[in-house]
Amino acid sequence: MAAAAPPPLPTAAPVEALPETKLASHPLFCRIRLANPSDVPHIHKLIYQMAVFEHQTDQFTATESSLSSTLSRSQPFQSVTVFILEVSPNPFPESNFNPLYKPKVQILNLDHPIDDPEKETFKSEGDDVVVVGFALFVPSYLSFLGKPGFFVEDILVRECYRRKGFGKMLVTAVANQAVEMRYGRVDWTVVDRNVNAIKFYEHMGAKVSPQYRICKLTGEPLQANGN
Amino acid sequence: MAAAAPPPLPTAAPVEALPETKLASHPLFCRIRLANPSDVPHIHKLIYQMAVFEHQTDQFTATESSLSSTLSRSQPFQSVTVFILEVSPNPFPESNFNPLYKPKVQILNLDHPIDDPEKETFKSEGDDVVVVGFALFVPSYLSFLGKPGFFVEDILVRECYRRKGFGKMLVTAVANQAVEMRYGRVDWTVVDRNVNAIKFYEHMGAKVSPQYRICKLTGEPLQANGN
Repeated sequence: MAAAAPPPLPTAAPVEALPETKLASHPLFCRIRLANPSDVPHIHKLIYQMAVFEHQTDQFTATESSLSSTLSRSQPFQSVTVFILEVSPNPFPESNFNPLYKPKVQILNLDHPIDDPEKETFKSEGDDVVVVGFALFVPSYLSFLGKPGFFVEDILVRECYRRKGFGKMLVTAVANQAVEMRYGRVDWTVVDRNVNAIKFYEHMGAKVSPQYRICKLTGEPLQANGN
Repeated sequence: MAAAAPPPLPTAAPVEALPETKLASHPLFCRIRLANPSDVPHIHKLIYQMAVFEHQTDQFTATESSLSSTLSRSQPFQSVTVFILEVSPNPFPESNFNPLYKPKVQILNLDHPIDDPEKETFKSEGDDVVVVGFALFVPSYLSFLGKPGFFVEDILVRECYRRKGFGKMLVTAVANQAVEMRYGRVDWTVVDRNVNAIKFYEHMGAKVSPQYRICKLTGEPLQANGN
């Protein structure tokens, strides 16, 4: 703790000034937890924001009801799983959470508070708690390793919260869970024009492979090949 | 049937010649079915052949035991699922199959019989039945569509059986199952240097997207990010 204290001022400063200096750094409490049914409207809006970011709103046909029916039937980590990332200027109250996952909490010290134009839309349970992003992932199977893994289908941090480490928190939470379950790998995809994200993932130690192409069979051609 | 008969010869040919002409085309009975525990040694060898094809034998650490424990815990189509493709010069006998999937049988008429140097290694249940390839797939979730899909992790046809339509049979079987379950898409990956496969998939109507990069977090970096 001593290392974090500011150097003494030339004139003796009152000791009481220290807590004020700390408060001025705008602590933000961040929590990652398993999604629950009441998160569905938020997840639906976040998925739409992803479709906007990837210029694919023409493909967006998901409804709150389709999302809800999938999530209600999914056993966390055995099927579709959603992590919710939320923040609060105050410590999170103790709550009853899914026994399959103990929420991860950490404090981010920001220079300035974040001005969130969608604060009301993304209000979560509890005073001043706001949903910031999510990760949606499914189990995969790595046949060369003979082990399961996770495939992260979606990862999104809302625009005003970007470039502050929230993306890394989400990826780390999935990686953490994979390690805990002795899984062999976490995979996800990124669009090649998203150069910053690629640099960030490579910095984390992820291998970004340019030689693979993703093939998608959907719509009419899927129906034609499926009959 | 009349349309398939050859045109009459200038001199009256004996009717008995027709079946002989048909037999000369070397019919091969092909069957796709769900894998069962006795297929594990074959699947293990096929995965190794995939690792050889993808120059990734250094990553091959799967064992028959790891594969067996995954498959024995998997509910077909809800988790890791393996389709086995096998062939026989004779019709397949009626067998007891997994009630979750009725095997798909079709007959391929070849100009020449296939010389299979690994026939003994890949001998399956029943006389003259040989395992030719497999597809290993897992459920995915397509958040924009709000629907599940399938992700095909592996698809392999043994070398001497390639370029005869077996690959298409496997992809079609997965697509068929996806359509039957009202799933939204079937995805898989292909290495960019495999130009023939890419052409073939595009011909099937699959969209091969060059703009996506696959990120893989494994080994040491996974452990580092997971703690």
